[in-house]
Amino acid sequence: MLKVAILGGSGYTGAELLRILASHPYTEITAVTSEKSAGKKITDLFPHLHKYSNLAYEAVDKERLLQRADLFFLALPHGASQEAVDFFFRNGKQVIDLSADYRLSEPDVYAEWYKTPHNYQKTLGKAVYGLPELYRDKIKASRLIANPGCYPTSAILGLSPAVKENIVDAETIIVDSKSGTSGAGRKAETAFLFCEVNEGFKAYGVAVHRHTPEIEQEASKIAGKKIFINFTPHLVPMDRGILSTIYLRIKKDIDTKDVLSIYNNYYSKEPFVNILNDGLLPNVKDVRGSNYCHIGLKVNKRTNTLIIVAAIDNLVKGASGQAVQNMNIMAGFEETTGLTMPALFP
Amino acid sequence: MLKVAILGGSGYTGAELLRILASHPYTEITAVTSEKSAGKKITDLFPHLHKYSNLAYEAVDKERLLQRADLFFLALPHGASQEAVDFFFRNGKQVIDLSADYRLSEPDVYAEWYKTPHNYQKTLGKAVYGLPELYRDKIKASRLIANPGCYPTSAILGLSPAVKENIVDAETIIVDSKSGTSGAGRKAETAFLFCEVNEGFKAYGVAVHRHTPEIEQEASKIAGKKIFINFTPHLVPMDRGILSTIYLRIKKDIDTKDVLSIYNNYYSKEPFVNILNDGLLPNVKDVRGSNYCHIGLKVNKRTNTLIIVAAIDNLVKGASGQAVQNMNIMAGFEETTGLTMPALFP
Amino acid sequence: MLKVAILGGSGYTGAELLRILASHPYTEITAVTSEKSAGKKITDLFPHLHKYSNLAYEAVDKERLLQRADLFFLALPHGASQEAVDFFFRNGKQVIDLSADYRLSEPDVYAEWYKTPHNYQKTLGKAVYGLPELYRDKIKASRLIANPGCYPTSAILGLSPAVKENIVDAETIIVDSKSGTSGAGRKAETAFLFCEVNEGFKAYGVAVHRHTPEIEQEASKIAGKKIFINFTPHLVPMDRGILSTIYLRIKKDIDTKDVLSIYNNYYSKEPFVNILNDGLLPNVKDVRGSNYCHIGLKVNKRTNTLIIVAAIDNLVKGASGQAVQNMNIMAGFEETTGLTMPALFP
Amino acid sequence: MLKVAILGGSGYTGAELLRILASHPYTEITAVTSEKSAGKKITDLFPHLHKYSNLAYEAVDKERLLQRADLFFLALPHGASQEAVDFFFRNGKQVIDLSADYRLSEPDVYAEWYKTPHNYQKTLGKAVYGLPELYRDKIKASRLIANPGCYPTSAILGLSPAVKENIVDAETIIVDSKSGTSGAGRKAETAFLFCEVNEGFKAYGVAVHRHTPEIEQEASKIAGKKIFINFTPHLVPMDRGILSTIYLRIKKDIDTKDVLSIYNNYYSKEPFVNILNDGLLPNVKDVRGSNYCHIGLKVNKRTNTLIIVAAIDNLVKGASGQAVQNMNIMAGFEETTGLTMPALFP
Repeated sequence: MLKVAILGGSGYTGAELLRILASHPYTEITAVTSEKSAGKKITDLFPHLHKYSNLAYEAVDKERLLQRADLFFLALPHGASQEAVDFFFRNGKQVIDLSADYRLSEPDVYAEWYKTPHNYQKTLGKAVYGLPELYRDKIKASRLIANPGCYPTSAILGLSPAVKENIVDAETIIVDSKSGTSGAGRKAETAFLFCEVNEGFKAYGVAVHRHTPEIEQEASKIAGKKIFINFTPHLVPMDRGILSTIYLRIKKDIDTKDVLSIYNNYYSKEPFVNILNDGLLPNVKDVRGSNYCHIGLKVNKRTNTLIIVAAIDNLVKGASGQAVQNMNIMAGFEETTGLTMPALFP
Repeated sequence: MLKVAILGGSGYTGAELLRILASHPYTEITAVTSEKSAGKKITDLFPHLHKYSNLAYEAVDKERLLQRADLFFLALPHGASQEAVDFFFRNGKQVIDLSADYRLSEPDVYAEWYKTPHNYQKTLGKAVYGLPELYRDKIKASRLIANPGCYPTSAILGLSPAVKENIVDAETIIVDSKSGTSGAGRKAETAFLFCEVNEGFKAYGVAVHRHTPEIEQEASKIAGKKIFINFTPHLVPMDRGILSTIYLRIKKDIDTKDVLSIYNNYYSKEPFVNILNDGLLPNVKDVRGSNYCHIGLKVNKRTNTLIIVAAIDNLVKGASGQAVQNMNIMAGFEETTGLTMPALFP
Repeated sequence: MLKVAILGGSGYTGAELLRILASHPYTEITAVTSEKSAGKKITDLFPHLHKYSNLAYEAVDKERLLQRADLFFLALPHGASQEAVDFFFRNGKQVIDLSADYRLSEPDVYAEWYKTPHNYQKTLGKAVYGLPELYRDKIKASRLIANPGCYPTSAILGLSPAVKENIVDAETIIVDSKSGTSGAGRKAETAFLFCEVNEGFKAYGVAVHRHTPEIEQEASKIAGKKIFINFTPHLVPMDRGILSTIYLRIKKDIDTKDVLSIYNNYYSKEPFVNILNDGLLPNVKDVRGSNYCHIGLKVNKRTNTLIIVAAIDNLVKGASGQAVQNMNIMAGFEETTGLTMPALFP
Repeated sequence: MLKVAILGGSGYTGAELLRILASHPYTEITAVTSEKSAGKKITDLFPHLHKYSNLAYEAVDKERLLQRADLFFLALPHGASQEAVDFFFRNGKQVIDLSADYRLSEPDVYAEWYKTPHNYQKTLGKAVYGLPELYRDKIKASRLIANPGCYPTSAILGLSPAVKENIVDAETIIVDSKSGTSGAGRKAETAFLFCEVNEGFKAYGVAVHRHTPEIEQEASKIAGKKIFINFTPHLVPMDRGILSTIYLRIKKDIDTKDVLSIYNNYYSKEPFVNILNDGLLPNVKDVRGSNYCHIGLKVNKRTNTLIIVAAIDNLVKGASGQAVQNMNIMAGFEETTGLTMPALFP
């Protein structure tokens, strides 16, 4: 049994890790931390997590935690994660960081978008961007995984084959994304009250959202040149799910079937990526609660544009499920262990 | 591996059986039927059920199906199930019927509420009401299970300890229930369109809903005398979940702690019933997608009334999950096999 | 033009007053207060209220406000309203208080349920409970209106004819109510986040909700004797609306048509109460955004029970619409002025 | 009083016309038709429309209807409207057609996208596209208005100033739109059941949606050259509202403030278009139930892209409200008559 600790277990991402790991046969959760809820039982906050009825939140005491686990999931706020990641990594532990702190490989870009310097650049240099579909081998060889953001996971999985195969003009990429409300976390803010979100729909963070450089970094690596992205997130009145609609100008004379063929080849061995047949488009409802990514696409010959639609559950493939997938790879477990439960529909 | 067939697999209940059985280690699904969708793949209707990408719906041919499975789940409409149940049962198979056709032990009561006679009364006499918390031993010994209705499951689990212990006046029972919309099935009717249900809330079937005699039958058996129930269902703008609020006049001088103690004792060995601590009340959100029933209660001393609140997922503990639980019991598997996944929250 | 001020204009109730009064031909809003949002424009908080684009929130300065309006709507928190009501009333103004502070005529009952003494008992003695269907003449003659609570409005309108006509056993009344989330106000609390409320349903405040004594007070006045009520509120994943399902034991041999006749007579002249025909039951969706109350009912002869279902919009007939209705009566305007807009459906 | 008839009054658009006209002081509704619901009362289908409790649906008999009204709203399905429009127009009546049949001025384009020929091309030549912000004078002088589609209304209002001022490269326009479910109409189809739509989000009609040529027609007229649009509609789990996110490549060195200034000037006299201040973006919730269009925008200097976000209520400004606005213009009423009610929030 792999001994696992979760730092920051009182938010939706932490709770989702606990939910998923409840069905994982090879892990044992030895500690869950929360500053605000220290002393409370897990089930005081999350009655659905009966399995942990004997487990309580504790305050973070990194020195003591060190002995109690082999792998640390960090679901701390951005900024707060920097130092904790460094600590556990330097002390020889496996670390999967669900914050954004180790996703951007260039410290300057991090500082520009997150408005705070990166103080652990040596450790940052060791981090692997934890998207298994792109970096499986590096993940296997690493002890420090920067778990991708929710929007970037959908965008990069959607973009990669087309950019890689060089069929599109990478300078005109538009990613129009829509997310369920759990992406905002479990924060008591007026803007996320039921009565503010329900029956509403809005864009936010236009041109300034922090997931922009993360998508650009990965798209640029694939393209082999610097790419800028137009990224617009929107808030959907639903709990879970991200759907990204991606627009790419086509360079070649190519049709939907050709592109589907490229996508099917690219992801042919991926257990969690599902390319839909011609004529079908994904619905976030079909991936809710699951680790799957559904991708549909269409070439618009009138406008010479490739439209790709990618759907994931932001808390699973977009966060905690992908973290467990990374853990499975790092630990040498079957990659799909604990992650094959179908979506909850309806 | 137990060979299993599902008759009526294109509705929400059938899809939910497939979802749950996808994680069940000891069953193999050998056939799924649907008259309307015969020839289509499971994933044509339900893209979330990738695991069955090689499985297609077929029309019902009972003779041929007979050889292909040992246990038959019947998720057919009420009325249509009568004959099919009889057929498979007479031919030596194990049958779990998710319709209402074999739930009411008295044919006259069935005929009165379902407006159609029961034509297989001999087989009806063999059926066991499949609520494991009440009839586990009978289920184990039976080949024919009448899987309980969704509302009755919540009501009977909520009522039983109080009625059994004779602390309430069983003549004044009120069951005020609220259900998510999946309880209406996957029928294309105007009344269940998104725009009709969303931002709405209504009562329906007041004093005439067909689950009334089912609750009365079981409550009467426990009480040892004929009980009439006021049962009022309501439609909630959510996908899944039933919450029943039950009002009972108390006969004795008893307080909340006393009643909680009775409930905790009564369900002390039940893996799927969770009695909440004093001061807590259940939320359907905490059982969504799971087989658990959460029960909270309170004695109102000002009015001498016991208020019990019971929450389940109507498609899981209220239908397909309970059917799998019954299958586990009949087949000698660990009762919780495939059913311990926590609820999906949020 | 009647000069009107709103104290506490940054919550849902205050915003709803502004929305309704935007179409009122005989009023002019001269001041809107908010401690937290003083200095901000109305449209900074509520972009839908363009009509007030030149109006800003101000902090409360009672002395100065006194000169600026003839009628004061107070949408302050319970407790905070006591002193303000007294001030404006003593200074000769018309006051409509949307808090609970002046609803309970007995100070002891107020103190028991609200955990704070009532310090203005002389003024309390002048307050009229502002349910026009019961107290129209008193409202017309008064300067101080205690605007009813949202749940009590639905319950009392539902109960009154049956209790008044003495056809029911008033000792066994059960009011099972379900409310949209706007009833909780615009408070940034985790429990009312979208992800906590959506796809959830729960009871709360069982046996201890503060609207209990308000319903009891009015039901007792009608019955001419002290009545205790079982009142259970529930939270529905929708913005607006209250539906109360009321259970009453029938004393006489009476059927649905008889009771409908009683209800139709009782409310025959009421512009905002709509008794549905036999066989129909109300849906909150049909009253959303309107000042109407829809009532349906049924006698269950098997159990000798009358079930009444009453639906209102909690922010309109349950709060701000009723406040405007009271204003119309007090000011001598046509009672329906500004209040006849149909519900927003879908 | 203007005598008004509504053909096709049993869908959401027809009901919305009735709702809005209920508050209109200068119109009298003399007939409402529905083939399916002929003989039923309006309130049988729509209990919220009490005001019409004496009005019943009737089957269409065009000859007889001719004498009963001066202005005809046609809310019939596409295709079915062609002949009816022609009939009433030829007989000297004022006609506002809410279908798509008279929106596309070129019959070939109509035939290509709607898969049916246009058989009344002479009448088609008389139709004015009923977007008051662009064609107010033509509307005033016309007897035949083609009321714009819901998506096109949001897209064209969003696009026009930028295209008109020639600040953008009109060849790269992307319109990514999101609509509430009422846009699908009141049809009993599985795809629009509550359980299919709720907690879901999907794109549909990618590259083939029929509103594409309508947006292209109007954008081309403004630009003075043929423009092709990438238009992608999405389905949002909410009742009402459209939000269109529009991407345009900027030709000049221009920033957000410059573009806001252009938009404010362009719409300075428009009663229903509200340009939001720098930093603000619209939410469909703020226009729900109202005839207003809220527009926010931002220039992304990193990518040289102008992002415009436009929000309307699809049933009001996107259909029935705009139809009433057109009626007001045609009839010489104040243009805002009956249309100034603020949005219903929350």
